[in-house]
Amino acid sequence: MVTIKDVGKHAGVSVATVSRYLNGKGYISDEAKKVIEKAIKELDYKPNQLARSLSTKKTNIIGLLVPDITNPFFPELARAVEDTAYTNGYTVVLCNSGEQKDREIHYIESLQQKYAAGFIVTTNQLEADYYRKISLPIVALDRRLDPAIPTVTTNNIDGATIATEYLIARGCKHILCVRGPVGLDVAEDRFTGFMETMKNYPNISSDIITSQFDFDEAEKKVFDYLKTHEFVDGIFASSDVLAIGAMKAAHSLDVQIPGELQLVGFDGISMGKLLTPELTTVAQDIYKLGTAATELLIQKIEGHEIENNLTELPATLVIRSSTK
Amino acid sequence: MVTIKDVGKHAGVSVATVSRYLNGKGYISDEAKKVIEKAIKELDYKPNQLARSLSTKKTNIIGLLVPDITNPFFPELARAVEDTAYTNGYTVVLCNSGEQKDREIHYIESLQQKYAAGFIVTTNQLEADYYRKISLPIVALDRRLDPAIPTVTTNNIDGATIATEYLIARGCKHILCVRGPVGLDVAEDRFTGFMETMKNYPNISSDIITSQFDFDEAEKKVFDYLKTHEFVDGIFASSDVLAIGAMKAAHSLDVQIPGELQLVGFDGISMGKLLTPELTTVAQDIYKLGTAATELLIQKIEGHEIENNLTELPATLVIRSSTK
Repeated sequence: MVTIKDVGKHAGVSVATVSRYLNGKGYISDEAKKVIEKAIKELDYKPNQLARSLSTKKTNIIGLLVPDITNPFFPELARAVEDTAYTNGYTVVLCNSGEQKDREIHYIESLQQKYAAGFIVTTNQLEADYYRKISLPIVALDRRLDPAIPTVTTNNIDGATIATEYLIARGCKHILCVRGPVGLDVAEDRFTGFMETMKNYPNISSDIITSQFDFDEAEKKVFDYLKTHEFVDGIFASSDVLAIGAMKAAHSLDVQIPGELQLVGFDGISMGKLLTPELTTVAQDIYKLGTAATELLIQKIEGHEIENNLTELPATLVIRSSTK
Repeated sequence: MVTIKDVGKHAGVSVATVSRYLNGKGYISDEAKKVIEKAIKELDYKPNQLARSLSTKKTNIIGLLVPDITNPFFPELARAVEDTAYTNGYTVVLCNSGEQKDREIHYIESLQQKYAAGFIVTTNQLEADYYRKISLPIVALDRRLDPAIPTVTTNNIDGATIATEYLIARGCKHILCVRGPVGLDVAEDRFTGFMETMKNYPNISSDIITSQFDFDEAEKKVFDYLKTHEFVDGIFASSDVLAIGAMKAAHSLDVQIPGELQLVGFDGISMGKLLTPELTTVAQDIYKLGTAATELLIQKIEGHEIENNLTELPATLVIRSSTK
């Protein structure tokens, strides 16, 4: 069986380069592209599990349920899921629930009846009980559906703690937390991390506003808040989308970031570094979240035992220019 | 048969509100959500073509081939495709080609063999001949694959003309065109629109640099260019992604936008209005592009004749703050 190593050797490039080529991720020179394509052809290379899957499996479809693919967190996640699925011979069906129960149920039911091998679920419109009763393998990603369902997530409490501690270390005295949706577990964990940290700093004031993970809503709410709370000098936003809304609000009010107001987001989406100032954020390893969830799901689909039902990846503070 | 109108009437809300609910797009109050869900339940409403499709069709899968879902143009397009597919009883398989020929061929072949009802293709790694020989219905979206294949696109030449004329009308004397990938039809059309317009203004100088539709590459190239060409006072970027890279480069060099340098992008992705300054751009109607392509494909799948093989939507200039 020809392996990715053989392709690299034959083409005279590293395995990492071949992998970048196969996944279409990251920079690769035209030169390298050419020699790799030549090597693949000459060696008749096929991603190994792919060939196996195509000949032995009845279905190789993975359903990926997301709330909304236009929220910039999800395309990055979807790309990782699809890259991993692809190299393992699976295909991804994209399902936007639009945060509608009926639509989520429709997708789960029709995929179950028809062809899916399993699901990755990044939504949680339904009761835990519903997910538990799904007969196909299922993995929860960035959401906790039920303790019985394997879950891949980031340690959100730790992440929020790091962000809050950092704002305080950089001198903030009046911190606003832009909390995400009430009842959404990742948002609740980040909120908990913030609140628990603030308990240790009785001399620092804090306040909370709540917003859906939506630019426009966050912008409006932070704008209204800052207008009447000029003394606020730090914002911890529970997602980068919220932070971007907050940044827009500050710009509209001519509040200087980071001079007058420091801002930390959460997620680490690519857009954060395209802003001015670039966004300091608690980064999740989005690509790895997607990869890990997909690998877990494939293990389940292929009948392997899963040892650990909770995979929690660490969050890391990425310091850019929205903090001093 | 219960219709969307009946649901609206029963719930006491407009048809547009029910449609927003069903598609999960746009704002909808919790109040409205509740009454609509109640009405759907009480009337046992099912999106009509959905019910039909589920009982009569063997497969209801549409393959959507995109170069990279993390390029922010594509999630917006994918969302429109999926919304339209959903309301018509179809499911979308997301295929990132990663701009790799092998990966694109793999997806087309495996979907053809297995279950797809048709394809929407927004990539063009392969020869026209290859696409023409695909036995399933196919629609080209934002790309021209072959005159025989129904195509939905924006009038890119007109769009680029509007952008260039606008920069000139706003007083630019030295305009840089950040051209997209050579050989990519939409980029070539925008380039043509720019060049043809410049012919009418012999007193205005212009220059061209080329970049893939990639933030980082555009930022680097524009940075290097502006360093040695300080007199440039206008940039037409062939996509918003390129424009965002250009904006970052200008910020790094402390070139004021729009005071010293005016900037117009192309596409109209949501990110444009989250930047500071907000991006003036030639907007495509991205959602409508996706909707139109999906409706065309479904017509083909269901055996209807397609009268017009080329649907070209107009582009509109959206004036924001990156121009004077």
